[in-house]
Amino acid sequence: MRIAHVAPLWESVPPRGYGAVESLVADLTAAQVLDGHDVTVFASGDSKVAGTLHGIGRTALHADPSIREPEVYRMLQLQEVRDRAAEFDVIHSHVHSNTGCLAIPALHGLHSPVVHTVHCFFNTDNALLFRRFAAERYVAISGDQRSHLPELNYLGTVHHGIDVQVFPFGREVADPRPYLVFLGRIRPEKGVHVAIEAAHRAGLRLKIAGRIKSGDRAYFERQVQPYVDGDRVSFLGELNFPQKTALLAGAAATLMTSLIPEPFGLVPIESMACGTPVVSLRAGAAAELVRDGITGFLAGNAQQMAEAIRRLPTIDRSTCRAHVASEFSVRRMADGYQAAYRAATQR
Amino acid sequence: MRIAHVAPLWESVPPRGYGAVESLVADLTAAQVLDGHDVTVFASGDSKVAGTLHGIGRTALHADPSIREPEVYRMLQLQEVRDRAAEFDVIHSHVHSNTGCLAIPALHGLHSPVVHTVHCFFNTDNALLFRRFAAERYVAISGDQRSHLPELNYLGTVHHGIDVQVFPFGREVADPRPYLVFLGRIRPEKGVHVAIEAAHRAGLRLKIAGRIKSGDRAYFERQVQPYVDGDRVSFLGELNFPQKTALLAGAAATLMTSLIPEPFGLVPIESMACGTPVVSLRAGAAAELVRDGITGFLAGNAQQMAEAIRRLPTIDRSTCRAHVASEFSVRRMADGYQAAYRAATQR
Repeated sequence: MRIAHVAPLWESVPPRGYGAVESLVADLTAAQVLDGHDVTVFASGDSKVAGTLHGIGRTALHADPSIREPEVYRMLQLQEVRDRAAEFDVIHSHVHSNTGCLAIPALHGLHSPVVHTVHCFFNTDNALLFRRFAAERYVAISGDQRSHLPELNYLGTVHHGIDVQVFPFGREVADPRPYLVFLGRIRPEKGVHVAIEAAHRAGLRLKIAGRIKSGDRAYFERQVQPYVDGDRVSFLGELNFPQKTALLAGAAATLMTSLIPEPFGLVPIESMACGTPVVSLRAGAAAELVRDGITGFLAGNAQQMAEAIRRLPTIDRSTCRAHVASEFSVRRMADGYQAAYRAATQR
Repeated sequence: MRIAHVAPLWESVPPRGYGAVESLVADLTAAQVLDGHDVTVFASGDSKVAGTLHGIGRTALHADPSIREPEVYRMLQLQEVRDRAAEFDVIHSHVHSNTGCLAIPALHGLHSPVVHTVHCFFNTDNALLFRRFAAERYVAISGDQRSHLPELNYLGTVHHGIDVQVFPFGREVADPRPYLVFLGRIRPEKGVHVAIEAAHRAGLRLKIAGRIKSGDRAYFERQVQPYVDGDRVSFLGELNFPQKTALLAGAAATLMTSLIPEPFGLVPIESMACGTPVVSLRAGAAAELVRDGITGFLAGNAQQMAEAIRRLPTIDRSTCRAHVASEFSVRRMADGYQAAYRAATQR
């Protein structure tokens, strides 16, 4: 098949820093090229993809401080996709944020079928747009996500997949004393304070890593920093990939404390790929990612999380890794999208 | 003619607070309805227009703090315009900002002609989009603006017009001691510091009014506030319409000190409508607005502005007002757009 991916432009594909969607596009493209497809990726000009790159702009948008109107590059990208639409059997658009939503009206009415993967939350604003374009073709990234706006024309639900081989397992751990991990953006709805409470109740150390955006500084200073003593609670800032995986691989468990219904979660998948179980609040897609009692535990609040943490010795770490290898592989993701493309081209 | 206006959604039409484009759309619509046209305005749901309102959303976007993704409403608006396009002889789009630019790709390829008034600056980002869509139909708001991107398909240049009757003239002035005015956003490129220097050199008091956005707070604190003593320099904050016009009407002159090429300037037009001459840096569209030596003066720097201020007694205030009534009337603006619509519908 001749496949076009419409990637976000904020990061390059694959991302130099953090970029879940850009990373997925890179992995999916590589798998599709290996499967013999002809893949074109509309992405930032400095991207390095397995197929053919149709570059937009010189660099990823975040990397060029002279860019004042990033939306304009998105508009240009979508126009270039429209111009070349007839060259593709399917156009796979990755809708990742409010500006990402623009792809829905902008790629409407093309002769070639367009499949939109919804990577973002539904909210009262963007739901107006999704409902207006309910008849377009969508792929959900979890069943939970889909349940929040069930009336869209979904071709399927395709979980994200990762390459488990890239993640360390059973290596020497730099910090031999047991610890828990919170990994993610430091902001109120991610529940960092809940992770601190759960770790405290369980009597285990907690290592927190993630980015703090300027608007979330006050939350960090009030709800996180007072507990950071460098021992029972430590804060490591933003980590690169090797630092992140080493942190995950060495942990007793990763805590997922998001207070909003996350449509998916890459961190729990990556944690389990390292053999590290996940103790998660029962919210969003968590129950689709973690097998309760087998690759971690689902809990209702910080106290239940602490109780689960005490039962961690019952979890087999190689089962955690095998779970990801079987359920969240790039292969499985590529097969899921292949089925969605077939559905799209048969209509 | 059946005319559709595509207004910004940030403010209602007409605006409750500041909104140059929303104000223009209200005045232009009223004139077109009086001329017998059938006018539909796509604007925020709380707008009050002379023609027929096609409301988008419940209120102006800025007035609803629950709205997290204003871009979505713009996308919906443009889709609704597309849906109804065949009902109109001409669609008049008001491109006012980066999100406003979205109208250019989104309204491309319609059977009904679309005329885009460019209310914003050209910059290296949006110029990529304008050049890609150079063959669409544009109206410039000044000759100077047009000179920055001359390769677009311009149907004409139409200056903004205002209703001079709305502005006070020759009333009792609350502050009898002579003063100068700076009116506009408090930010570096508006050159508030240049106005302070010019007023100081001329030995006249300066009253500063305008909004400070949070990002410009540091500029205000470093370059403006130290000079504010409540007498020689005073700062009045953001004013409503009656406050603003009273301030302008009572002034010896209004200072225009923008350091960037403004594509137009409503403040100098409003000032002259009140009979108050304008002393302006020679930049952007200034020379198209102020008749040098007759309704004010053009100068190259703060020192030349101070010299011009000393020559203010040679300016006749009724000539300032007459200049606006003849050159910047709503009538003249409506005629300019009528000519552009004719050009658009004849192609």
